[in-house]
Amino acid sequence: MPFVNIKITREGATAEQKADLIKGATDLLVNVLGKNPATTVVVIEEVETDNWGVGGESITVRRKKGM
Amino acid sequence: MPFVNIKITREGATAEQKADLIKGATDLLVNVLGKNPATTVVVIEEVETDNWGVGGESITVRRKKGM
Amino acid sequence: MPFVNIKITREGATAEQKADLIKGATDLLVNVLGKNPATTVVVIEEVETDNWGVGGESITVRRKKGM
Amino acid sequence: MPFVNIKITREGATAEQKADLIKGATDLLVNVLGKNPATTVVVIEEVETDNWGVGGESITVRRKKGM
Amino acid sequence: MPFVNIKITREGATAEQKADLIKGATDLLVNVLGKNPATTVVVIEEVETDNWGVGGESITVRRKKGM
Amino acid sequence: MPFVNIKITREGATAEQKADLIKGATDLLVNVLGKNPATTVVVIEEVETDNWGVGGESITVRRKKGM
Repeated sequence: MPFVNIKITREGATAEQKADLIKGATDLLVNVLGKNPATTVVVIEEVETDNWGVGGESITVRRKKGM
Repeated sequence: MPFVNIKITREGATAEQKADLIKGATDLLVNVLGKNPATTVVVIEEVETDNWGVGGESITVRRKKGM
Repeated sequence: MPFVNIKITREGATAEQKADLIKGATDLLVNVLGKNPATTVVVIEEVETDNWGVGGESITVRRKKGM
Repeated sequence: MPFVNIKITREGATAEQKADLIKGATDLLVNVLGKNPATTVVVIEEVETDNWGVGGESITVRRKKGM
Repeated sequence: MPFVNIKITREGATAEQKADLIKGATDLLVNVLGKNPATTVVVIEEVETDNWGVGGESITVRRKKGM
Repeated sequence: MPFVNIKITREGATAEQKADLIKGATDLLVNVLGKNPATTVVVIEEVETDNWGVGGESITVRRKKGM
């Protein structure tokens, strides 16, 4: 019954990459803790770069600086 | 002062249904714990079916399989 | 597959009350959106009153003021 | 390494205002707890007014009532 | 800069297993999306079985039924 | 009606420091977005250092390395 929430910036992750995240996170819970995959839920949230900050500035600004 | 966060897949919930979720969740906290409805907050998050996984695969894939 | 997260202050909710929240939130998703109860997950988080604030002050302080 | 998640209704916050929230929240963690700004993450989530409820009704409805 | 939140029931996960979850989730984000591990944050939340529900009943009750 | 969730490692934050976080986060929302402090909620979650990872390892391990 684990619940995994992955937050990333919205910068073009493809459906295939998101499927890989879902598969990988589910396998992780199964392998490490023996959880049942049928009830393991993974939710990916993609956040605009204006809305994500680190070091006190937005990712939009950091991307412009080449970070 | 309770805070309720409801995450569902984005598959056409109407404004009326979302109003019913807000009303129902608020009433639940009032009835079970005697919370003040005026400070009970409900936030509904609708998540793309590509971004929600269960059993190691996305809801998009599961819907195609008729699940 | 809905996921409901209920955050409340830790002020003595009993196991029975928490069972009622779980049952009520699950029924709500089933009744309003036709969700499958078997995959509806409810997680209750109880937060110390020092760690919850509203109006700029903690619930601990507000309780002392009789609020 | 703190993580700050700010949820607000989607009602026109500008990129500049969101930058101010990111800067302010980061400074708060640095000033109060001596956290390292380089690893302080702030994520802002903007929620449709149909999806946010307080007092048992949506913000959409409350806005129409002038609240 | 991804943020991964893993919620599990509190049923005896060891520090070593939690280290494996942290390592595995970080590797997943690096491998699938090319994220920088240095800014990938993983937070594990362990929730009492009375506070986690599925199918309308708590995990405490389900465990007693052998589920 | 904003909701602010601050996650930090559990490493001895005092009630006074947590009160300062609550006050500061509330003021931030009031000053930047003109939100009503009476309905601004702040929830602080303190997470064990075994349960928080960055760079693929737990904070417990990093603290031992002097990081």
